[in-house]
Amino acid sequence: MTGTATATSPFTADDYRARMRRAVREAADAGLAGLLVAPGPDLVWLTGYAPTAATERLTVLVLAPGREPVLVVPTLEAPDAAKAVGAPALTLRDWTDGKDPYAATAALVDRDGRFGISDNAWAMHLLGLQRALPATSYASLTEALPMLRAVKDAAELELMAAAGAAADATFEEIREVPFRGRREREVGADLAGLLRRYGHSQVDFTIVASGPNGANPHHEVGDRVIEHGDMVVLDFGGLKDGYGSDTSRTVHVGEPTDEERRVHDLVREAQEAGFRAVRPGVACQEVDRAARAVIADAGYGDYFVHRTGHGIGVTTHEPPYMIEGEERPLVPGMCFSVEPGVYLPGRFGVRIEDIVTVTEDGGRRLNDTTRELVIVD
Amino acid sequence: MTGTATATSPFTADDYRARMRRAVREAADAGLAGLLVAPGPDLVWLTGYAPTAATERLTVLVLAPGREPVLVVPTLEAPDAAKAVGAPALTLRDWTDGKDPYAATAALVDRDGRFGISDNAWAMHLLGLQRALPATSYASLTEALPMLRAVKDAAELELMAAAGAAADATFEEIREVPFRGRREREVGADLAGLLRRYGHSQVDFTIVASGPNGANPHHEVGDRVIEHGDMVVLDFGGLKDGYGSDTSRTVHVGEPTDEERRVHDLVREAQEAGFRAVRPGVACQEVDRAARAVIADAGYGDYFVHRTGHGIGVTTHEPPYMIEGEERPLVPGMCFSVEPGVYLPGRFGVRIEDIVTVTEDGGRRLNDTTRELVIVD
Repeated sequence: MTGTATATSPFTADDYRARMRRAVREAADAGLAGLLVAPGPDLVWLTGYAPTAATERLTVLVLAPGREPVLVVPTLEAPDAAKAVGAPALTLRDWTDGKDPYAATAALVDRDGRFGISDNAWAMHLLGLQRALPATSYASLTEALPMLRAVKDAAELELMAAAGAAADATFEEIREVPFRGRREREVGADLAGLLRRYGHSQVDFTIVASGPNGANPHHEVGDRVIEHGDMVVLDFGGLKDGYGSDTSRTVHVGEPTDEERRVHDLVREAQEAGFRAVRPGVACQEVDRAARAVIADAGYGDYFVHRTGHGIGVTTHEPPYMIEGEERPLVPGMCFSVEPGVYLPGRFGVRIEDIVTVTEDGGRRLNDTTRELVIVD
Repeated sequence: MTGTATATSPFTADDYRARMRRAVREAADAGLAGLLVAPGPDLVWLTGYAPTAATERLTVLVLAPGREPVLVVPTLEAPDAAKAVGAPALTLRDWTDGKDPYAATAALVDRDGRFGISDNAWAMHLLGLQRALPATSYASLTEALPMLRAVKDAAELELMAAAGAAADATFEEIREVPFRGRREREVGADLAGLLRRYGHSQVDFTIVASGPNGANPHHEVGDRVIEHGDMVVLDFGGLKDGYGSDTSRTVHVGEPTDEERRVHDLVREAQEAGFRAVRPGVACQEVDRAARAVIADAGYGDYFVHRTGHGIGVTTHEPPYMIEGEERPLVPGMCFSVEPGVYLPGRFGVRIEDIVTVTEDGGRRLNDTTRELVIVD
C-alpha cells in the first residue's frame, strides 16, 4: 500500500479558481489548446492538492479554454483529492486500475492542439498522452508560460515574507553559535534545525562553505573544520507553509584582513545596486547588469561566475531569472533572489543574498538582517 | 544555490558495470536503440549516483549497444557524479548553463531508433530529446523492460533481507506499545520512529487502520481513537541502505470474536498458499490465483479487492506484479510482496504481508514474525 496525504492550504477555493482561470487565459493568449498539470508545484499552486508522491498512476489537471477544470485522479486517491481546498473549483474524474487514464484525459481536450505540460510530469505519462492524442504537440510549462506562477498575490506575499522572516531569525541565531573548530556539516545541521524550528517544513539547502571551499559557489557542506581567519559563506532555505526562503550571508571567524573586508564591501555594494535596479517595467537582465557592473568596475568581474538571481515561490528555484538575455519586464508581485558573489579560487568567497519582491515603485527586501560583515567565533 | 549530495553504495564499480552491460543487452534484445536513464531508482541501480533532486538541468545516463555508457550531467554536478561508486564504469560528459544538453545527448545515440526512457524522466527533458531527435520514438522503461531491476543479485538480497529484518524488529516492538485509547496517527508515528531506529533512511508508509477503517485497503492513518475490540491492520515500510521493506500484520485489541479469528485464519492460509506457489518458472499470476482461491473458496472472494503483490527493490513498488494476467515467469532473485486481505465494509479488515524472494527451488520469506493473530493492549 502506498501513502496518501491531505494537503493543507492557506488559500480559499476562490483563490484557486482565480488562478486556474488566469492560467487558462494565459494559455489561450499563448495559442495553447490547454494545460496538463502534474503533481508538484504547478498542481499545488493551481489547486492546493499535493499527493504524497508522483507515481505511475496518472494524476493530471486538465485546463482548457471554454471548459471547466477537470482533475483526473486514480480512484484510490480521489477521496484525498476531494479534500483539497481547490477541489470545489474543479471536477474530479477518477479512474480505476485496469482502465486507460490517457484515453479518459484525451476525451477532455481538443485532439489536435498544442498543450503546455508541467516540466516535471513523468515521461511515461507524456508518452501515454502522445499515444492517445497523436495529433497533439507539447511544450513544457516553463517554456510555454514561464511567468505563470511568477507574480504573487497579497496572501502569497505574506507567506513569502513569513518565510523570509524565519530565515532572518535563523541567521540571527546562527551568528551566535561557535564556528571555529567545528565541521561545516555540523553548522549546516544547526542551520537546518533552526529553519525547522522557525517553521520550515522542508529544508532545501544549507550551504556552509568555509575558507577555500567558499570559492566554489556550488560547495554544500563538507568535513572541513572551520578555522580562525576563515570567511564562511552561509546559504540556506526551504519551504515554510508552502512558500520559499533563500538567504545568503558571509561571516568571518575573527577579524578579517583588509582584502577580505574590501571584497565583502564590494559584494554588498553590488547587492545593493541589484536591489536598487528593481522596479516595475525594468527588464530582468538589468538587475543582473546593475550588480555585475559594480563588481566588474572593481576588477573582479571574472570572479562573479553565476547569474544574479532566480525566482522563488512554491519552489525555491523558478522563473524569472535575473540573467543577461532575460528581457521580460519585472511586474509587481514577482519575488526573486538578488545574490551576487565573488569567488577567489583556492582562497575564499563572498555571497550576499536577499529575496526581493517588486512593489509598485521599486523593490522590497523580504530578508533584512544586516549585510555588514558579521564576525563570528 | 541548490544542493547536491554524494551517493553511498554497498556495491563496487564492477557491479554497476555488470548491470549496465545487462541493461544494454536486454535493450538490444527488445529491439531498442538504447536506454535513457533519469535520476531516480533506475539511475541509482545502474550507477549508484543519486543527485539530491531531479531538476530542470538535464542529467541522463545514455546506454546504447556497441557504445560505452555516458552520463550527461550539468557541470555544477559533475564533481558529485564523479564520486559515485559506478563512475569508473562510465564516461562523464558535462554541459554548462547556456549550452544545449539535448543536442549533446543526441550526438551519443542513433538518430532514428526507439529508446527506453525512465518512467519518471521529466516531460520537459523528453520533449527536448524529441525535438533534438525528431526521428526517434520512446517507450517508458517499465513498458519496454519491466523486469530490468526485478532479479536481485546476492549483495542486493542481503540488503533486502536486512531491510526485512528491520521491519520484523519494528513489528516485535510495536506489538508491545499501547493501542487502546490512542489515535491511529500516534501508533503510525511509533512505527515510523521504529523503522528509522532500525536503520531505515526513508519511511514510505505507516498504515494503522483500526476497526472499520481497516475495511478500506487504502486507509493510511487518521484521528480515530483505537478501541477495545478493534482489529488493526498495520502496514509499514520504506528504504534501508537503499533497499525496501514492506510488511503487514493485523493485530487485535483484546480477545477477538470467533468471526474475526476465522477471517484472520483465512487470510493467513491464503498468504501461506501464495507463498507456497512461489517457484522458478511459475507465472506471476499463479501466486495471485493460489492466494485468491483460498479466500474465494471460503466465500470471501468479493472482499479481496486488490492484487496479491508487487515487486520491491530500490523502490517499494515496482514490477513484477502478482496479478491475474501477468504471465511472466518467476526467476530466482525476484523479490515481491505476498499480501492477500479481506475487507468487510463498515466492520474490519485483515491483511498479512511478507516480502518473498524466489530461490532455486521455491521461495524464501524476508519477513518472519508470527502470522498468528497477535493480541495487543
